[in-house]
Amino acid sequence: MWGGRFASGPAAIMEEINASIGFDKKLYAQDITGSIAHATMLAECDIITEEDRDKIIHGLNTIMSEIEADTFEFSRALEDIHMNVESRLRDLIGDAAGRLHTARSRNDQVALDFRLWVKSELQKTAGLLEKLIGAFLSRAEEHAGTVMPGFTHLQTAQPVTFGHHCMAYVEMFSRDLSRVDDALERLDESPLGAAALAGTGFAIDRHMTAKALGFREPTRNSLDTVSDRDFALEMLSVASICATHLSRLAEEIVIWSTPQFGFVTLSDSFSTGSSIMPQKKNPDAAELVRAKVGRINGALVSLLTVMKGLPLSYSKDMQEDKEQVFDAAESLELALAAMTGMISDLTVNEAAMRKAAGSGYSIATDLADWCVREINMPFRDAHHVTGTAVALAVKKNVPLEKLTLEELQEINPAITEDVFSVLTVKKSVASRTSFGGTAPAQVKKQIRYWKKRMEKRAK
Amino acid sequence: MWGGRFASGPAAIMEEINASIGFDKKLYAQDITGSIAHATMLAECDIITEEDRDKIIHGLNTIMSEIEADTFEFSRALEDIHMNVESRLRDLIGDAAGRLHTARSRNDQVALDFRLWVKSELQKTAGLLEKLIGAFLSRAEEHAGTVMPGFTHLQTAQPVTFGHHCMAYVEMFSRDLSRVDDALERLDESPLGAAALAGTGFAIDRHMTAKALGFREPTRNSLDTVSDRDFALEMLSVASICATHLSRLAEEIVIWSTPQFGFVTLSDSFSTGSSIMPQKKNPDAAELVRAKVGRINGALVSLLTVMKGLPLSYSKDMQEDKEQVFDAAESLELALAAMTGMISDLTVNEAAMRKAAGSGYSIATDLADWCVREINMPFRDAHHVTGTAVALAVKKNVPLEKLTLEELQEINPAITEDVFSVLTVKKSVASRTSFGGTAPAQVKKQIRYWKKRMEKRAK
Amino acid sequence: MWGGRFASGPAAIMEEINASIGFDKKLYAQDITGSIAHATMLAECDIITEEDRDKIIHGLNTIMSEIEADTFEFSRALEDIHMNVESRLRDLIGDAAGRLHTARSRNDQVALDFRLWVKSELQKTAGLLEKLIGAFLSRAEEHAGTVMPGFTHLQTAQPVTFGHHCMAYVEMFSRDLSRVDDALERLDESPLGAAALAGTGFAIDRHMTAKALGFREPTRNSLDTVSDRDFALEMLSVASICATHLSRLAEEIVIWSTPQFGFVTLSDSFSTGSSIMPQKKNPDAAELVRAKVGRINGALVSLLTVMKGLPLSYSKDMQEDKEQVFDAAESLELALAAMTGMISDLTVNEAAMRKAAGSGYSIATDLADWCVREINMPFRDAHHVTGTAVALAVKKNVPLEKLTLEELQEINPAITEDVFSVLTVKKSVASRTSFGGTAPAQVKKQIRYWKKRMEKRAK
Amino acid sequence: MWGGRFASGPAAIMEEINASIGFDKKLYAQDITGSIAHATMLAECDIITEEDRDKIIHGLNTIMSEIEADTFEFSRALEDIHMNVESRLRDLIGDAAGRLHTARSRNDQVALDFRLWVKSELQKTAGLLEKLIGAFLSRAEEHAGTVMPGFTHLQTAQPVTFGHHCMAYVEMFSRDLSRVDDALERLDESPLGAAALAGTGFAIDRHMTAKALGFREPTRNSLDTVSDRDFALEMLSVASICATHLSRLAEEIVIWSTPQFGFVTLSDSFSTGSSIMPQKKNPDAAELVRAKVGRINGALVSLLTVMKGLPLSYSKDMQEDKEQVFDAAESLELALAAMTGMISDLTVNEAAMRKAAGSGYSIATDLADWCVREINMPFRDAHHVTGTAVALAVKKNVPLEKLTLEELQEINPAITEDVFSVLTVKKSVASRTSFGGTAPAQVKKQIRYWKKRMEKRAK
Repeated sequence: MWGGRFASGPAAIMEEINASIGFDKKLYAQDITGSIAHATMLAECDIITEEDRDKIIHGLNTIMSEIEADTFEFSRALEDIHMNVESRLRDLIGDAAGRLHTARSRNDQVALDFRLWVKSELQKTAGLLEKLIGAFLSRAEEHAGTVMPGFTHLQTAQPVTFGHHCMAYVEMFSRDLSRVDDALERLDESPLGAAALAGTGFAIDRHMTAKALGFREPTRNSLDTVSDRDFALEMLSVASICATHLSRLAEEIVIWSTPQFGFVTLSDSFSTGSSIMPQKKNPDAAELVRAKVGRINGALVSLLTVMKGLPLSYSKDMQEDKEQVFDAAESLELALAAMTGMISDLTVNEAAMRKAAGSGYSIATDLADWCVREINMPFRDAHHVTGTAVALAVKKNVPLEKLTLEELQEINPAITEDVFSVLTVKKSVASRTSFGGTAPAQVKKQIRYWKKRMEKRAK
Repeated sequence: MWGGRFASGPAAIMEEINASIGFDKKLYAQDITGSIAHATMLAECDIITEEDRDKIIHGLNTIMSEIEADTFEFSRALEDIHMNVESRLRDLIGDAAGRLHTARSRNDQVALDFRLWVKSELQKTAGLLEKLIGAFLSRAEEHAGTVMPGFTHLQTAQPVTFGHHCMAYVEMFSRDLSRVDDALERLDESPLGAAALAGTGFAIDRHMTAKALGFREPTRNSLDTVSDRDFALEMLSVASICATHLSRLAEEIVIWSTPQFGFVTLSDSFSTGSSIMPQKKNPDAAELVRAKVGRINGALVSLLTVMKGLPLSYSKDMQEDKEQVFDAAESLELALAAMTGMISDLTVNEAAMRKAAGSGYSIATDLADWCVREINMPFRDAHHVTGTAVALAVKKNVPLEKLTLEELQEINPAITEDVFSVLTVKKSVASRTSFGGTAPAQVKKQIRYWKKRMEKRAK
Repeated sequence: MWGGRFASGPAAIMEEINASIGFDKKLYAQDITGSIAHATMLAECDIITEEDRDKIIHGLNTIMSEIEADTFEFSRALEDIHMNVESRLRDLIGDAAGRLHTARSRNDQVALDFRLWVKSELQKTAGLLEKLIGAFLSRAEEHAGTVMPGFTHLQTAQPVTFGHHCMAYVEMFSRDLSRVDDALERLDESPLGAAALAGTGFAIDRHMTAKALGFREPTRNSLDTVSDRDFALEMLSVASICATHLSRLAEEIVIWSTPQFGFVTLSDSFSTGSSIMPQKKNPDAAELVRAKVGRINGALVSLLTVMKGLPLSYSKDMQEDKEQVFDAAESLELALAAMTGMISDLTVNEAAMRKAAGSGYSIATDLADWCVREINMPFRDAHHVTGTAVALAVKKNVPLEKLTLEELQEINPAITEDVFSVLTVKKSVASRTSFGGTAPAQVKKQIRYWKKRMEKRAK
Repeated sequence: MWGGRFASGPAAIMEEINASIGFDKKLYAQDITGSIAHATMLAECDIITEEDRDKIIHGLNTIMSEIEADTFEFSRALEDIHMNVESRLRDLIGDAAGRLHTARSRNDQVALDFRLWVKSELQKTAGLLEKLIGAFLSRAEEHAGTVMPGFTHLQTAQPVTFGHHCMAYVEMFSRDLSRVDDALERLDESPLGAAALAGTGFAIDRHMTAKALGFREPTRNSLDTVSDRDFALEMLSVASICATHLSRLAEEIVIWSTPQFGFVTLSDSFSTGSSIMPQKKNPDAAELVRAKVGRINGALVSLLTVMKGLPLSYSKDMQEDKEQVFDAAESLELALAAMTGMISDLTVNEAAMRKAAGSGYSIATDLADWCVREINMPFRDAHHVTGTAVALAVKKNVPLEKLTLEELQEINPAITEDVFSVLTVKKSVASRTSFGGTAPAQVKKQIRYWKKRMEKRAK
């Protein structure tokens, strides 16, 4: 395969560690598409004849069909997808096949194939994020007024609405989406024509292949082109942050599905049972989504470690880029799809949420705020007054609003009957009208904003 | 500090694990600036009086001076920078201080302080990247025609120019710069006014504080606002990729500085000696830059791990965000500055580079390409012919161009005298004129392109 | 400092990136102890005079006192702790100081200092693990019979006892302890005398210094000695696994402290409040312990990344080992101590646990097992029968044991009245008598086993 | 599959994310072996009949054969290897199959299968480490006296021998081996019989199955047993450190194979060529070994992330343990085998090593040491004298030993003719006789030590 320089073939263990065909055959379509674009350009630039070009393209299309029909025989001795395709091409069309590799190297070829793959996965991921955002927007609309406890430290903090909670995830996944967009924009350069590392002396037209392959433009430095895996690192970074969001949501679903919380119920379609405990209905899908962040972070660390300290230009270490990125991309897509299913499908137990929203002294801040607003107390003092009231209520084992006016006045005599008007969950929620706050009117406003943005995007 | 609810104070070990003042005091300027903006807005919205506002602002400015004069006494019992400042404010201005925390919580306050810090570091990083790119553009101009061996697998591959190699790093650091820009754009939302998690019932104006603090707009969901650390994760991701680039460059400097390579010499200013071996001149700065990617990747893993599976909204786990981000940002800045110094300062040993460029059969591809171009051989066959020629030259221990025409013709009779015209390093380099290739003309073209872009940016 | 080879001093940025004194001064005691052992040996081997030795030791002891009294002036220009001490020694005792570095290099010196530090921290960690295990053994004894729901997937699975749950952590932390022991055993070799990398021509006695410094023996290869940071990597690995255990425990405390679960109550000493919500009592300590795994994993990744691909022997990259290890060790120790406090201190709400243990159809497996045992049903069939019974009970919204005999017999006619005898939480727990099972007798047996082992260890 | 509780089956996306059969079928042998041990014990304890036991064992053996003959049809709807085997067993032997799952759950079953797999891989790894150590011992014996430059900071430091360098790796891989041993010792407990999480009420004998399956003893806490993945985390930690060693060695091979260094030549069996550059012979195997540390570190991060914060006992997140561990174990084994091949096979270019050993002022320390020993200079002064001499030699562009006596005496008049007797590479190396030093006698001593230890181990 490498011509006349070599006296003996590889050791068995060498072949085993060296061959990539086991995983890079996934890139067959990108490889063939890239070769067709290359051959077309070579003919256009008079580097090969039109006849050779036609033979080559016909041969490549045949190979594409063979692979898709699963009749293609991959050979590990031929190392990788590029040589497997080229070798088969020679079988099919003879000498002309030998002209395809003019002005090209496997170094720019693999950079192209892999970049095309990453680009297409990022586009798929964008679509899945749009669907998940859509699912949240629907649930948010439905539940813009459904009260639930807002938590900090997983302790009841202040009442919020479930719609508001859904919209927090819309924010997160929209940031993910915008990171995907930026990554797509940045990688939109064609590596083809960088050749081995130095460019080529053949009078090729890199803009032509870039355009044919759907890239904005060709890359600007051939050394960098064959050395660079930023597009993969950036995809993994973006995926890690997105998977982190998913893990937080999954954790909430797991906790909310416990009998103790009971805020949501997953449908049977997203639950599993136990081989030993017949009563079990487990939130396996949520747990698996939560866990996916592990392998995605792992993939990121993996590639960062591989790329650390590699001198330019191409080193074989970089062959370790693909499996990790393949796995991370597919894991993220699976997690996004599963989460979209769960969110669309789960039952929201409004009664349980409402009950919990009213417990745990969730409206204590409203009492403090009332003191600030109505009797002009500095917030710090109001905070102290309310703390004392809560301690009393805890001691008496009653909700805050069941303290008597006398009891409150003993803590601070300026408190009046009017205070009870703010001490309900509903009032509390309705009052949080600051921009981005939990008041149903605010939540609806943000829903409208995001629906419009998503619609615009869809165009 | 937390008012009437608590019967006893924290355990000693609790105070030790809980207090953040040891590191978050670094945020004092952001904290005070944020509070001034908040107080100004509260007065504008008639939530506090102008008199109280004036007292608050005066007090805060006093505190800023005290901290900068190093006369401020930080207290661990007061936990964090927010409470340290607020407590001192009460000493200074009395009751009015208690009104500052109206419509605010430490949850949005710390989100603001930290985001302001990250924003400012990203801006600093952008500036340092610009300088490093500038240094490379200068060296590239100087050495657009200086030949050196291009490597793949650290084996001599094809001759390139040192200017071309420099421009590869311009590409990498420009991508880093564009990632920094994107991160800055994405984080440009003000958290202030999200309050504890639900927003507030006070009629605040979040757009006013956003503007005062230099943000594009306020965040759109209060739950997300206090739960989100994407801006820190994204900064760490961007930093990891950039540090990876630096590690590659540093590795090259280390290898190139060996007596065996001798391509570059670091100045004494960037070298160190040995406590035992008097002859040593070590590339310590390059090694330390190479190593920084370790702690930056570590910081990224650290925060990804912390955020994994945290239910909304704020959890105390998130206090672990700062030290890692502080360290990563400062490490990256130090590494960028040190690298800029090294690059500007190092001596390029052109003779050593040139000599190496001509060894290792670096021009073998040129022979193959000649066969394709001049005697119409398919590339694969030309590759084989050249491999055989190289094997013969290795056996005879001569450079490729020292094979005789007879020897070459024995391999393939179609080869003519003309072949020797391409078999020089200089010709080889000059011939690679494809877009982004190593031909000096191409390199200069790309230098012009990047200088223009950087100038535009500077405006 | 590096003698006559250098014409000019370091650039400012070089000094900043290069100096380690900012953090390695933490090793002053190890450094001085090592130097005293070295000087003693040099004199014993007639390499320096006894008079010089005495001066050196006296000078070093003076420096130790100065550092401990905080009167020592550290200089960044002197780079590190070694040169700071040596330089001060020359001030104090003159020329004799120059003899201390005979047959030694900073390369073996730093390897020694750091190894001594890691060794001592591992010993501290072992002590803290013993205390945490002790705390769990106490709580387990107290609660060997306290029933609570056992969870899988955070869904009620089968009843267990809180004592049994505590003993699960005894197992985990005992494995951590045994990993610490192994790490201590493995690192117990003295680096001193490896010199720069090749050993030395002076007739030193490395066994003498090894013994004086409390090591089992000297290292066996000088190149490896100055290149090796396995002891730090292993410590970080061990710490990461231990921190993972702590994070699981912390997560349980956070979940169990919610009003929804209410299984445990943290004391005020281990809780914190809110600056805005006066009612809050947050499990901050547990959250911070949970988060510590982030920075410890980060430190591990950091050092693994630094060490990747470093050629032998010492490279300056390795200076990046210390801060991460310092931080990880101290974080782990803090987390262990805080957790021991929390565990010893928390209130176990037995009633809430008992109530939850009986809900969620936790005893369904007991029904299935009864069918297997008493009416000889294959387990798979019994599982199906019980599943049907649970579905009926869910539909009727009653606990399993409230189904009537008739209803059960409709599902399977072979079921008899006797079945109700196993359908209680208490019976269920008591029945799990397999080795390591949750039956109180089994739990007590394991408590006895571990108490004996820990006592033996303490001797 | 989960009996009567479920009304509807899983969503398609649920099945996709949930099924593990795609990867856990690798555990079929462990699963079947475990089931045979379980059935044997159940019969021995009179929980099932001997007849049922015989049927079960016969059926399981049949399934084993089917899988090995590749005629077994795996079904994704049956989720995992356990249910696939059990379902087929029911096809084969009918009702008796339903009795196999008595007193067992998939939770302890998978813990068993996976632990058996990890144990066996660790044993395989130990064998591969022994082989690699053996290869190094051979090369070290052969080259105990072959001089080469010892490097620090990749700069020539002092001459060492290639045998000494080889022995540094013997130390590293021996530590790896001892970590593997410790991990094996620690995981040697049988999970079987922990059942779902609480143990079982059936009178099983866990010691019997532990013994049958080759474990030291059963685990001591059923909750921990089904929650624990320490054995996998420890394996990954051990693998990461070992892979780090391999990456360092691989880096050296890559650098030493450059034409600039030329210290070693990989055989054709461990090299590859280029698709475009006919002259290339690339150290691909070394690069791939270097890169493997990436995926192994990634796997470690992955599982640490997955396990972070998981409440007890089993959670579905833990299903994410296998693929990463499978991949890391196999990657490490491949890397060890490939490295053993390369080391055994590579040509050591003694002349190139010797020449480099004498350049770069590698013997400067010998001059300094001579000054200390022979003219009683304090080392610090001798260091300075030598530094000055080196600077002069650099200026004159001659090796140190080519300075004249007069020139040396101008630097320090006490220097005598005798100094030249130490200024040779051979003398330098021979002089480093401290324990573990590079003197050939010392190197041979350590070779003997390690050969004896490895022989002892082999028994």
